[in-house]
Amino acid sequence: MDIKSYLSKKKDLVDKALEKLVPPAKTFPASVHEAMRYSLFAGGKRVRPILAIAAAEALGAKTTDLLPLAGTLELIHTYSLIHDDLPAMDDDDLRRGRPTCHKVYGEAIAILAGDGLLTMAFETLSDPRRTGKVPANRLLPIIKELATASGVFGMVGGQVVDMESEGKDIDFPTLEYIHTHKTGALIRASVRVGALYAKAGKRQFTALTHYGEMVGLAFQIADDILDITGTREETGKDVGSDLEKGKKTFPSFYGLEESRRRAVEVADRAVLSLKDFDKKADPLRELAKYIINRVN
Amino acid sequence: MDIKSYLSKKKDLVDKALEKLVPPAKTFPASVHEAMRYSLFAGGKRVRPILAIAAAEALGAKTTDLLPLAGTLELIHTYSLIHDDLPAMDDDDLRRGRPTCHKVYGEAIAILAGDGLLTMAFETLSDPRRTGKVPANRLLPIIKELATASGVFGMVGGQVVDMESEGKDIDFPTLEYIHTHKTGALIRASVRVGALYAKAGKRQFTALTHYGEMVGLAFQIADDILDITGTREETGKDVGSDLEKGKKTFPSFYGLEESRRRAVEVADRAVLSLKDFDKKADPLRELAKYIINRVN
Repeated sequence: MDIKSYLSKKKDLVDKALEKLVPPAKTFPASVHEAMRYSLFAGGKRVRPILAIAAAEALGAKTTDLLPLAGTLELIHTYSLIHDDLPAMDDDDLRRGRPTCHKVYGEAIAILAGDGLLTMAFETLSDPRRTGKVPANRLLPIIKELATASGVFGMVGGQVVDMESEGKDIDFPTLEYIHTHKTGALIRASVRVGALYAKAGKRQFTALTHYGEMVGLAFQIADDILDITGTREETGKDVGSDLEKGKKTFPSFYGLEESRRRAVEVADRAVLSLKDFDKKADPLRELAKYIINRVN
Repeated sequence: MDIKSYLSKKKDLVDKALEKLVPPAKTFPASVHEAMRYSLFAGGKRVRPILAIAAAEALGAKTTDLLPLAGTLELIHTYSLIHDDLPAMDDDDLRRGRPTCHKVYGEAIAILAGDGLLTMAFETLSDPRRTGKVPANRLLPIIKELATASGVFGMVGGQVVDMESEGKDIDFPTLEYIHTHKTGALIRASVRVGALYAKAGKRQFTALTHYGEMVGLAFQIADDILDITGTREETGKDVGSDLEKGKKTFPSFYGLEESRRRAVEVADRAVLSLKDFDKKADPLRELAKYIINRVN
């Protein structure tokens, strides 16, 4: 299969779903709606919604009704980027090659745009006009999955520890905590949302969870490597920004070569966890390889 | 009935429910858990959860299973206070007589504590260990109610317009928009959450919605009056802070006397909307009067 054309097709579907979820930019009050759209439609690759879709497809499910639900993963991801970029947090000026949300709209509107996107995710997941034929008892575990991955035991916790570790000589378990929470939790949740939607059996759910964890880790190692070796064109942000902020990364513990080797190993383990799935899981398999191809 | 003893009893129940919902302060990462608790247990009167409970009681429902759900109203209210107080927003140093969250924990942790509380509300509402016997198809409309009241067409929208109006000569409809969205939306939602929990009929739901709207408005007029006439002990914040920031309020359009008269009128209308309810709605009736008693 051609993973690039798969990604491009699914990205189009996700973008169309997002377009419907978020009010037009001119909606009153316009500033916050513009800001939400500015960050949401900034050229993201929609990796998280696509992981949800690919997981559901691996289980043989039709994904029409999944699209708005998968879109909420991107709403939450975008909210976390906007808040993480704030001056009080990581203080980043560039994101996806463009000025960050607060650089364009100011801090207050950026905070509120993030709050608005996070809330919109849960509004979408509880709105029958959005969720179509997905029954309430299947939506609730999906809401739980997203809320847990986003909260103090997920992304928020990861961001707290990440910030409090800046310039400190943290140990590897602390770096692992940051990775598994700040980025890993939502990536794992993406796969699980697709699995819950497609009514995965217990063993399937466990396998897909493991896949999600490995892909999340591979993604993070690749990101850490790209912060060193990537160009600004590739990453859309300033190169070496982790180093500059005194942030420990995977390569600062293991070096570039060993980090590359581990990225491959972790992606292999992601593929291995799908051994009981048939070829409908090929997009998931190719996605795992694609994520680390960026650095090999 | 004695509304003060009613309020005090219900406040205790809500506080106990909140104590269970929020992880201990020492939970890793401790800073954000401490900050969430600092703001959540700062002596709030729990008006919103109590409105939900009183609405459910007015319909004859038992409220044991409602307590955690009602608690999420306070999680969301507290999140909104933390974010609204930030330097980039209203820049307030005092809240409920104590330094605001960011003054104690710094801006980054305050933003994240807010994010954590907002997310925890939705985690609670989707967690079977919290929601007890409330079925999924009744929880979903409750989630929708809260998300809509908190989002860009509720609190977030109200805060945007409030901030963008500072120092400007806004008209009365704009002030009304701020009131109905920034504070009104969540107060209305509180009553509706209780009504949804108690399976209100269509007419009951409409009546309780109207009650919630009137109480929200009365609450806001009273708040505006107290900002002028209250002492720092009464309000827990600096007196005259609206005026100082060049914020238009109810009294700046209608004067103190007329504002007081309207507060009474609006509270009367709240009581009137309960005319088809029996004495089980007395706490709601007394609550409406209690809210404006602060200024009379």
